[in-house]
Amino acid sequence: MTIPTSYLNHTDAEAARKARATYRDGLVAPTSGIAPGFTQANMIVLPRDWAFDFLLYAQRNPKPCPVLDVSDPGSPTTLLAPGADLRTDLPLYRIWRDGKLAEETADATSAWAERDDLVAFLIGCSFTFETPMVEAGIEIRHMTDKSNVPMYLTNRPCRPAGRLKGNMVVSMRPIPASRVADAATISGRFPAVHGAPVHVGAPEQIGISDLSKPDFGDAVRIEPGEVPVFWACGVTPQAAVMASGVPFAITHAPGHMFITDIPDTAYHA
Amino acid sequence: MTIPTSYLNHTDAEAARKARATYRDGLVAPTSGIAPGFTQANMIVLPRDWAFDFLLYAQRNPKPCPVLDVSDPGSPTTLLAPGADLRTDLPLYRIWRDGKLAEETADATSAWAERDDLVAFLIGCSFTFETPMVEAGIEIRHMTDKSNVPMYLTNRPCRPAGRLKGNMVVSMRPIPASRVADAATISGRFPAVHGAPVHVGAPEQIGISDLSKPDFGDAVRIEPGEVPVFWACGVTPQAAVMASGVPFAITHAPGHMFITDIPDTAYHA
Repeated sequence: MTIPTSYLNHTDAEAARKARATYRDGLVAPTSGIAPGFTQANMIVLPRDWAFDFLLYAQRNPKPCPVLDVSDPGSPTTLLAPGADLRTDLPLYRIWRDGKLAEETADATSAWAERDDLVAFLIGCSFTFETPMVEAGIEIRHMTDKSNVPMYLTNRPCRPAGRLKGNMVVSMRPIPASRVADAATISGRFPAVHGAPVHVGAPEQIGISDLSKPDFGDAVRIEPGEVPVFWACGVTPQAAVMASGVPFAITHAPGHMFITDIPDTAYHA
Repeated sequence: MTIPTSYLNHTDAEAARKARATYRDGLVAPTSGIAPGFTQANMIVLPRDWAFDFLLYAQRNPKPCPVLDVSDPGSPTTLLAPGADLRTDLPLYRIWRDGKLAEETADATSAWAERDDLVAFLIGCSFTFETPMVEAGIEIRHMTDKSNVPMYLTNRPCRPAGRLKGNMVVSMRPIPASRVADAATISGRFPAVHGAPVHVGAPEQIGISDLSKPDFGDAVRIEPGEVPVFWACGVTPQAAVMASGVPFAITHAPGHMFITDIPDTAYHA
């Protein structure tokens, strides 16, 4: 995916900038439905020594890990949002040490200062295609209920790369049976932000035994006639951090994304 | 792009295997039109120390550098053609030292043995969409004339990554004015192998002063009523090797590609 910087010259990204400012000022909240129409991104930040392994992991697993931008080593900035600071402009961060969650924090500045060679990867997020789904009359349950999207660690291994391995994480949205095909079609138009679902119905086949107990985020209501639809999720890198014992990483907290200045339409295939 | 290995189970790739065997036995010839229907790939092989820079260069410049597969360090094999040996199965190689072309050879085995950590990148090739263009009645001039495709170093800089920089290389096909839109549409369906043209007509605007003097490959006839159409080209990594003074690299020779076992249709968007 080429960086769609040309869009920056033709879009007033005030809503995105304002949202980032509230997170910089300390607000902690999931970002689904915030600054609608602006692309949201997962983040994983790794020492330069691990950056090749991760970029290769993403190349080999593009469905859960579609790379939107990669920072230069040591730089907490991105072309996707000029002026933004990746250390402060997400609502909530996770700091990982030796593959274990060490801390959640609303400000990653001090963690980022521990190393001078950190590389930030921004990964597409399925929140991006929720706007066109809502516009098509498909209810997004976690938006209706103002909760975080439910996410599950599956039993599906990603293709390993160097020292990195792990299973795919998926997000789930309950969709009325009559709209599942529409949801697949609409999301399929956005391959850079996970694209079409990886699984529809039959959660037990991908190792999910209880939909009411997500591994990340919040459980949501599933009404009669609705089918659980699963999309590859940008929390997959965090599963790899855990499964691979990565010595140091900073990530977003699940559902608490980086909001870019790029309109969703830039990623429409 | 996910590795479309599922196609391997349903395709008899005998034509691809036979072509690779002729190159392994010493045949030196351009690969355009060979084993039609099988995806061809550019190759660049770099020491592990340069692999992140290159993978990032490819991520930042996906139009000229669409990555189809990356080998594990030290391994001359690829999932795209089980049993193939990347050291011998291309018709012609180039060995680069300190950014300069040191040697052309039909067998890269001894060069490959100089390092134990080489990483091979296979990059999509526009030969892949020539088959559907021919099927649509669009003449491919270098196929008609049994020559190599003409390629030009443009004045368009790629987005740098780490120590890598360089301008984009393009391939050129003369297309009748009435079929330019068709050529753009058909090639646009194959984003993993360079996709739609980057430039149509007006070669001087991208720094090409004389179409009869390509930087790589052979000049081709341009008949009255034909327009030169330019596609991003997988020789772009070789331009980066030169512009960046890369200490050691092995590449394919322009036009002399690696033929995979993957059918072209696997890369149809």
